[in-house]
Amino acid sequence: MPIRIRDVSPNISPALREGKLAHRREVAGPGVDLDVVSLRRGPISLEATIEALQAGPGIIERVAEAEAEGLDGVFIDCFVDPALRPSREAANIPVMGAGLGAMLLAMAVGDKFSIITVKNALPGTREMVRAYCFQERVASIRAVEFSAFELYRNERPVMDRIAEIAQRAIEEDGADTIVLGCTAMSKLARSITQRLGVPVIDPAGAGLKLLTALIELGISQSKRAYPNPPDRLAQMKETGLPTAEEARQAEPA
Amino acid sequence: MPIRIRDVSPNISPALREGKLAHRREVAGPGVDLDVVSLRRGPISLEATIEALQAGPGIIERVAEAEAEGLDGVFIDCFVDPALRPSREAANIPVMGAGLGAMLLAMAVGDKFSIITVKNALPGTREMVRAYCFQERVASIRAVEFSAFELYRNERPVMDRIAEIAQRAIEEDGADTIVLGCTAMSKLARSITQRLGVPVIDPAGAGLKLLTALIELGISQSKRAYPNPPDRLAQMKETGLPTAEEARQAEPA
Amino acid sequence: MPIRIRDVSPNISPALREGKLAHRREVAGPGVDLDVVSLRRGPISLEATIEALQAGPGIIERVAEAEAEGLDGVFIDCFVDPALRPSREAANIPVMGAGLGAMLLAMAVGDKFSIITVKNALPGTREMVRAYCFQERVASIRAVEFSAFELYRNERPVMDRIAEIAQRAIEEDGADTIVLGCTAMSKLARSITQRLGVPVIDPAGAGLKLLTALIELGISQSKRAYPNPPDRLAQMKETGLPTAEEARQAEPA
Amino acid sequence: MPIRIRDVSPNISPALREGKLAHRREVAGPGVDLDVVSLRRGPISLEATIEALQAGPGIIERVAEAEAEGLDGVFIDCFVDPALRPSREAANIPVMGAGLGAMLLAMAVGDKFSIITVKNALPGTREMVRAYCFQERVASIRAVEFSAFELYRNERPVMDRIAEIAQRAIEEDGADTIVLGCTAMSKLARSITQRLGVPVIDPAGAGLKLLTALIELGISQSKRAYPNPPDRLAQMKETGLPTAEEARQAEPA
Amino acid sequence: MPIRIRDVSPNISPALREGKLAHRREVAGPGVDLDVVSLRRGPISLEATIEALQAGPGIIERVAEAEAEGLDGVFIDCFVDPALRPSREAANIPVMGAGLGAMLLAMAVGDKFSIITVKNALPGTREMVRAYCFQERVASIRAVEFSAFELYRNERPVMDRIAEIAQRAIEEDGADTIVLGCTAMSKLARSITQRLGVPVIDPAGAGLKLLTALIELGISQSKRAYPNPPDRLAQMKETGLPTAEEARQAEPA
Amino acid sequence: MPIRIRDVSPNISPALREGKLAHRREVAGPGVDLDVVSLRRGPISLEATIEALQAGPGIIERVAEAEAEGLDGVFIDCFVDPALRPSREAANIPVMGAGLGAMLLAMAVGDKFSIITVKNALPGTREMVRAYCFQERVASIRAVEFSAFELYRNERPVMDRIAEIAQRAIEEDGADTIVLGCTAMSKLARSITQRLGVPVIDPAGAGLKLLTALIELGISQSKRAYPNPPDRLAQMKETGLPTAEEARQAEPA
Repeated sequence: MPIRIRDVSPNISPALREGKLAHRREVAGPGVDLDVVSLRRGPISLEATIEALQAGPGIIERVAEAEAEGLDGVFIDCFVDPALRPSREAANIPVMGAGLGAMLLAMAVGDKFSIITVKNALPGTREMVRAYCFQERVASIRAVEFSAFELYRNERPVMDRIAEIAQRAIEEDGADTIVLGCTAMSKLARSITQRLGVPVIDPAGAGLKLLTALIELGISQSKRAYPNPPDRLAQMKETGLPTAEEARQAEPA
Repeated sequence: MPIRIRDVSPNISPALREGKLAHRREVAGPGVDLDVVSLRRGPISLEATIEALQAGPGIIERVAEAEAEGLDGVFIDCFVDPALRPSREAANIPVMGAGLGAMLLAMAVGDKFSIITVKNALPGTREMVRAYCFQERVASIRAVEFSAFELYRNERPVMDRIAEIAQRAIEEDGADTIVLGCTAMSKLARSITQRLGVPVIDPAGAGLKLLTALIELGISQSKRAYPNPPDRLAQMKETGLPTAEEARQAEPA
Repeated sequence: MPIRIRDVSPNISPALREGKLAHRREVAGPGVDLDVVSLRRGPISLEATIEALQAGPGIIERVAEAEAEGLDGVFIDCFVDPALRPSREAANIPVMGAGLGAMLLAMAVGDKFSIITVKNALPGTREMVRAYCFQERVASIRAVEFSAFELYRNERPVMDRIAEIAQRAIEEDGADTIVLGCTAMSKLARSITQRLGVPVIDPAGAGLKLLTALIELGISQSKRAYPNPPDRLAQMKETGLPTAEEARQAEPA
Repeated sequence: MPIRIRDVSPNISPALREGKLAHRREVAGPGVDLDVVSLRRGPISLEATIEALQAGPGIIERVAEAEAEGLDGVFIDCFVDPALRPSREAANIPVMGAGLGAMLLAMAVGDKFSIITVKNALPGTREMVRAYCFQERVASIRAVEFSAFELYRNERPVMDRIAEIAQRAIEEDGADTIVLGCTAMSKLARSITQRLGVPVIDPAGAGLKLLTALIELGISQSKRAYPNPPDRLAQMKETGLPTAEEARQAEPA
Repeated sequence: MPIRIRDVSPNISPALREGKLAHRREVAGPGVDLDVVSLRRGPISLEATIEALQAGPGIIERVAEAEAEGLDGVFIDCFVDPALRPSREAANIPVMGAGLGAMLLAMAVGDKFSIITVKNALPGTREMVRAYCFQERVASIRAVEFSAFELYRNERPVMDRIAEIAQRAIEEDGADTIVLGCTAMSKLARSITQRLGVPVIDPAGAGLKLLTALIELGISQSKRAYPNPPDRLAQMKETGLPTAEEARQAEPA
Repeated sequence: MPIRIRDVSPNISPALREGKLAHRREVAGPGVDLDVVSLRRGPISLEATIEALQAGPGIIERVAEAEAEGLDGVFIDCFVDPALRPSREAANIPVMGAGLGAMLLAMAVGDKFSIITVKNALPGTREMVRAYCFQERVASIRAVEFSAFELYRNERPVMDRIAEIAQRAIEEDGADTIVLGCTAMSKLARSITQRLGVPVIDPAGAGLKLLTALIELGISQSKRAYPNPPDRLAQMKETGLPTAEEARQAEPA
């Protein structure tokens, strides 16, 4: 029986979802039954932290659905790991993010990695690195000028530019490994690896492989690190503070 | 002309907002014209990271309103600094969080501080400390068993319990300063300071004072650290990827 | 065509190799053609750093053989990652260690992990954690009193003792995830996970899964981080310093 | 009743004190009764660590006077925080330094700050950053070639040069916030903020604002971190070691 | 020709100096011509940071004399390294401190050390460890209740108490090496080493040996890290700011 | 009675050993009876980590001999500290490495040091710095293009090149102290110190001086950090797992 994984593309754009479909299935491999879904509500693209915030409720919804359907795990298909912590708190099945997965895999093959991301994702990426305590293994974080939209449209100039920036990270910043810091870049990883001669991490591939590994090993996020959220309605009944009207409004948006 | 600050209580419960009103105005002082608002949509209480996510869009809305009304600054009145980064990216007026403010003030008066928070806020608090790179100055993070609701209802047992846990942090973990890790505890700071004989940081007071200081000094968050978010509609027109239907849906939820 | 991996049990004891065989094949899964080999020369068991040193030449030999035979990757089946760096420098196919793999996977599911190892492996484990810069994510390193030999003989008392020590790491040291710090403990991971209610990382499983992921993604260790060793014979000819006699002796021991 | 703060200019030069007077009062604001005093003995200017040492006894004297007069707090008006720790140990009223205050405020508005100081203050500044454990938030420490004297004499070239160096810190070192690393530069902060478009921290303003905040919140330095010094005369009587002659000599120099 | 070292006992108490004399000469060994001097002005004993400040000018004076006399190096005989940085800036001959020397030697023989000091020296010791960036190698800092005076008077109970505290540091804090955190404890190092079975570092011995090593190797403190202080009188003439009267007062106190 | 130290040149090349002889004796000084030995088996030169591995058994053999002969200490004469940890575990007399010694001495005279090594030693050197937790004090690690062989043959161009690279480390990376990262460079330290005007650490000199200091102070590596290895033959008898045949094979290769 194959492993069943849902890949959540955390935006509402069908074009971005479609652009991922073939690559994600190929990367996941024949033993994984993978579907890719967009959000019902959220941003058009997810790069800035305000878009991560806008995507939050829609991601949680998709994670809850996946768990209710009995799937084995959920992959949040975006490098900045939007809503990863609350998703892991809400769910018991493993939830994995592309940023976390890519950085772990980079530390599996090198000493110092550089992240090549899009400009809008820089601040969220810097904070994420610090929140994971991976700073000592990061050589630099650099950005290309494209938006995630453009990454899907004109592959060759995009790849050339990423390779050029990555080369600078290697020569000037001392990187020995490159992490592509946007899942819209995932498809380019193999080509750039060959061109640069250092491992270039595909963040979607890294996240999917690590999620598959967790499922096969029978482990999920620690409930001591990611405890289930409190039952507010029960608490309200006990302490009585908010009004009933508020309780109604407070149902998950 | 007084400084005008909006204090955003990031939940929908009027009782929680009302419980803050008098203390916040007293702490802000006579030179500050402070109002306290709840969210129009969001969680009943904000402790867990999933509630921070639910509160996100409502907080951004309140921050945007404050800027549009010409206010001088916004204070997000919750220790886990929900939506602080995206709010700072969206706004040009200074936005301050209670957690950031309290930890900075703790480092102004001591070497090692312990955070006393509520159990639901533990995971978010731990991640926040790492994201700010303050680990070396943290002695420990400990929790009381109460929820934020209970903190408002029965002050005496709550204060006794916080003081007891704080005393353990001092004796067993080496803390020389205590940070109250929930703005619902703010009112207790002065009494506990006297009881314990070490500085006990009121997170709402700390955040409001730091925000006032920024406004008086004429500085705001760095737009290099918190850049304004991208204009997606313009990008869409240029690259054309999502359909018009999606663009409509993509207006801020 | 299945992935072909060689699992190197870095000691000369057939009993230890045999104890691993079934578990490793089960963990590797049907898509991996896995064989497990001992060393031709080396220590009886590998726990202390002097045994890691004794095992070094024998490990390098096994890695070179695997590469010459066209295998896809090599797994060094010992938590202290003996000879991992020189093996990676010598080979172009990916080489993975159990310690590195287990710690990466622990950081994929929790915030703070504790390592439960055998007493003889404590010093090497502590140094390894520092060499990987993972200290901030480690809650503690604790040891059981057994040697690796004993781990294979009497599973129940061993498991009881590991679970007891792990429980202490969770309660006293704040661990939310447990890493079994000896591959001889691997088989116990699933049972202890169930008993403790937190993820317990099987180091052999973690290493094998990460190695498989690298192979499937088409990446190997970075040659900028793990450069191929110098060609001494060529250097000798150029500079002429050592005598011919020395050159003869200098062939790999 | 206004807050009463003494600003200690830790040198003996009236010209340096006078140059601070107007700016400090303006920054402190109408609610603060601020006076600025020089030292009775000490260095002509305080930049190098040997000058910090020479200023030490004179600073302690000024802090003790302020406490005896019933003032609410003392601000040591120099970026390298000379005698800050012993002053805090000696006094019970809050004592604040410009360096500590400026760095805390920089972390309130940005991710990475660069310090622009004078050449003589570089070594002390580097050590101070490490002693506060703020390294991970520092992008760089750079110096202008001027001495503190020159900073007071020719504002325009000084400001141009500081802005130029700061611009390099932003572009080459990744700073998003600038800290002026000498209180003689304080007056220039607002102009340079406008010129560079990133927050530029006035260290005197930052320190005074944080001190005011502490006073208004009713907290002071932790006596667990800054314990009162021992009573040597009492100890001498008990143990009898030094002679009476020594006791006489031992009165504070 | 023997190496000539001056040992500066940074207080004015002849009894404390005399208590050091025999031990320091024995430790320095036959190849070193060592004299021990007290200060002409300063504190009776140096434990608290305010006493370090009081000792500053007297230490600088002793260092300058030693250099003027053509000595080879100066050892500041106190664990908290009082005036070490300004002394190194003022002098070109090597100046060494007991705290720096002891911690370096501890890292030469173990992984994690604990410092056993006197209560008054705790805050200065904690700050010193951070300023040197040695935190990751420190297991704990603990204090005995004695003052430095008492350490000289009743060796047996003092030694018993130090050994007891050190034993706790080993068992409870994971220390594998003990650093005696007060040079008044130096004489006890060998006995306690034997009693505890772990290396116990004599801070005076460590500092003297490292200083001797520097002299024998022909190196001194880096003038890039410890630049010579500025010539204020020359600067004054150029910029003219302070009055002549101030210049007179400004001669080294 | 002089101190008796064995200097282990961890390769089989007599030329390399001879090149060290005079310098090591001169550095060790008249009070030390020093002999220098090569290995009986091992690499021709030790730069890459695979050569460290090849040298391991031969180093352990030399350390054991020295202890059996009653010597006072052993110095492993190579910057990457090959087999230092297992040698320290195996022996009770102090064993010192050149890399550890040089970095400790660099931290005794400066704030930030750069290591100038040979290209083949870069990866091992980087890992070593992390394993010792000295990263915060390292400005950079740079390499010259020579192999250790060439360092012995043509002193002038080698010295010129090292000085040039060191100068860049000072100017571009902010180093205030230079560590020569290969003991084959040791002889050049004094000349380069004079040329550059900053301390240049001779790693052999540093290690020998620190070892001598330990011996004179009567301390050795902590057996809590470097415990004696387990007695495998005894364990085998108790648990019975390996066969007698394996026991025979298990004698140190």
